[in-house]
Amino acid sequence: MVVKINENYLKLKSSYLFVEVARREAEFIKQNPDANVIKMGIGDVTKPLVPSVVKAFSEAVEEMGNADTFMGYGPEQGYEFLAQAIKDDYKKYGVDIDTSEVFISDGAKCDTGNIQEIFGIDNKIAVTDPVYTVYVDTNVMAGRTGEMKDGVYEGLTYLKCNAENAFIPELPSEPVDIIYLCYPNNPTGTTLTKDQLKVFVDYAKENKAIILFDAAYEAFINEDNVPHSIYEIEGAKEVAIEFKSFSKTAGFTGTRCAYTVVPKQLVGYDSEGGEVEINPLWSRRQTTKFNGVSYPVQKAAEATYSEEGQKEIRQVIDYYMANAKIIRESLSDIGLEVYGGISSPYIWVKTPNNMDSWAFFDLLLNEANVIGTPGSGFGPSGEGYLRLTAFNTLENTKEAMDRISKLEF
Amino acid sequence: MVVKINENYLKLKSSYLFVEVARREAEFIKQNPDANVIKMGIGDVTKPLVPSVVKAFSEAVEEMGNADTFMGYGPEQGYEFLAQAIKDDYKKYGVDIDTSEVFISDGAKCDTGNIQEIFGIDNKIAVTDPVYTVYVDTNVMAGRTGEMKDGVYEGLTYLKCNAENAFIPELPSEPVDIIYLCYPNNPTGTTLTKDQLKVFVDYAKENKAIILFDAAYEAFINEDNVPHSIYEIEGAKEVAIEFKSFSKTAGFTGTRCAYTVVPKQLVGYDSEGGEVEINPLWSRRQTTKFNGVSYPVQKAAEATYSEEGQKEIRQVIDYYMANAKIIRESLSDIGLEVYGGISSPYIWVKTPNNMDSWAFFDLLLNEANVIGTPGSGFGPSGEGYLRLTAFNTLENTKEAMDRISKLEF
Repeated sequence: MVVKINENYLKLKSSYLFVEVARREAEFIKQNPDANVIKMGIGDVTKPLVPSVVKAFSEAVEEMGNADTFMGYGPEQGYEFLAQAIKDDYKKYGVDIDTSEVFISDGAKCDTGNIQEIFGIDNKIAVTDPVYTVYVDTNVMAGRTGEMKDGVYEGLTYLKCNAENAFIPELPSEPVDIIYLCYPNNPTGTTLTKDQLKVFVDYAKENKAIILFDAAYEAFINEDNVPHSIYEIEGAKEVAIEFKSFSKTAGFTGTRCAYTVVPKQLVGYDSEGGEVEINPLWSRRQTTKFNGVSYPVQKAAEATYSEEGQKEIRQVIDYYMANAKIIRESLSDIGLEVYGGISSPYIWVKTPNNMDSWAFFDLLLNEANVIGTPGSGFGPSGEGYLRLTAFNTLENTKEAMDRISKLEF
Repeated sequence: MVVKINENYLKLKSSYLFVEVARREAEFIKQNPDANVIKMGIGDVTKPLVPSVVKAFSEAVEEMGNADTFMGYGPEQGYEFLAQAIKDDYKKYGVDIDTSEVFISDGAKCDTGNIQEIFGIDNKIAVTDPVYTVYVDTNVMAGRTGEMKDGVYEGLTYLKCNAENAFIPELPSEPVDIIYLCYPNNPTGTTLTKDQLKVFVDYAKENKAIILFDAAYEAFINEDNVPHSIYEIEGAKEVAIEFKSFSKTAGFTGTRCAYTVVPKQLVGYDSEGGEVEINPLWSRRQTTKFNGVSYPVQKAAEATYSEEGQKEIRQVIDYYMANAKIIRESLSDIGLEVYGGISSPYIWVKTPNNMDSWAFFDLLLNEANVIGTPGSGFGPSGEGYLRLTAFNTLENTKEAMDRISKLEF
């Protein structure tokens, strides 16, 4: 006997997309130390926490220093005060959830990565292509795929999204049990209307499948017919888990708070076909492997729902969305095909002249000193695209667009 | 096709130990609304964060509200400033680690729960008995055990620890690949000397096994020959992962910060017997499924290592350990057998007259209005014991001991 590693890890591609981006950036800066490089690649925010949030956060830290108000272990699922604020927020969209359906965590990345643990290893998984790589990699690690061949993992179903189908994924052509959907989409910035999303909800109901719906970018929605929650679709509570985050909504990328909604109606099946409720399974997972979010962070998150907090975070989102508009319009004006950026901080740019993603990346880096993210890093259907984000400053965004506008393709 | 749940979850005992404790407590209070119940059960701290920590925590929150000092996504493995402080702290015990071997997280519960993911499903696992249930449950969930029978899971190796062997576990009689050890121990409060721990390190080296060493209670050690880190044992870096936490050390149970050390020398094996380094596997796990600890929390944790911070947290630990001494001596004085409580905040009490754990729990609750934790909840070898903790106030601890001292067994 010797200790065996989880060999599924060996199937993973060793180099992470953003590592290669950083390597090329560093190389460029080394060669061009005076270049003013503008980063529009990684989806990190730049605006600070808003005043209401800082106030609540600070006050809670003070509480932690006082014996009368000190908080030790909290509920693994999060404090009721925050779950209640989240429940109330859902009412804006006509969605009624119970606080026992809300699981507060330290990140949607963690939750979308961990959620697969409560499902059997033999489920068939579908993801959109291109895709947020966490959905794929965590299933590879768990052993739900074979090896990678030609950029795709064996055993995984990829739902193609590109300009030809207007970024609307078709239903899986082979039966699947679990479908990951992220809308507004990362990386393409595109959305689904209620009717388009309903097609997937209906599919899941018919096929006893489950949709894992990542709504991390919900706050950026500017279109009326785009749902803020999958639960706006009739019957979705029977088939969907929803993930939301304070990261992009309220600048919590370095503060860490998110939540997952697991409806009580949602069921999976045991090997004899018996129904098993999913909510207690996730609860068991979280109570066993997680110990709750830092109390001051939960108080900070609660403050985003105050009247003042809502106003303040709205201003920040509007700031980023003004950048998105500038990017979209500037690139359209010079004849590039652009997608997203209307209800999303991401703009998905078709490369000119059928250039491949990395060639366009290199061109923007070398000629305009602007960093994007090569679309091919998000999956084979991302080839020929590049992602730009609206999270930089207004000044840098304008400067980047000026430089790109002067290029000749 | 239908969505299948992870059926391993169905093997878990549905009622968690502390849920049943809380149920009996609530029932008692309902019947005796005027009783002054003293809780010495759950291992949560009661003292607030110390001033140095509150100061650093508050300042970092202010930084988050300022555009010039705002922090977005940090490294998933934690900031270098905290890893460096941890590295320096290890020098106290003559242990040299590299910051790339330190992985900062939001809890030792999370890390000891998640670590098994990077190992193959067919490893043979050993735990001490009694045991911190997270080690067991997370392996059950992953499918490394059969069903539970007579209080033990099939396929798991239990290393008995009780008064007969002075709580020194014997080496596994059947070969195992992974051994969980927690010293100072939760729940028994007992320790291993360097020589006793070396026996396990030597076993692991000979058998190409790995030790998962939970040192969450290291700060409570008061004995010279008890190692603060498994890496004080020669060769341990080749066979051990170590988990440490700010929870009990610095009152971070509600603040959330911990870390795991994965030495570069540590290897596991693929199915063809090839060596695979463990450090990059854990790094890959953390970068894929985790997004780092809240920046202000990491600054708060760093402050525990300042001169002032060390002095302040030492005072808090001394306070709890004075309680431990009172508990040990009071119970010894009335003829009870007590273990632990010297280098640990936990006191493990042998029930009088061969009473079972729950009977003794009920007796203390009904007759002294004191809540402990029944030892049987930690595994079959915990039967006939009860755990008390030193984390209550001095006043409550004295009052509880006064009441128990008046009982007749």
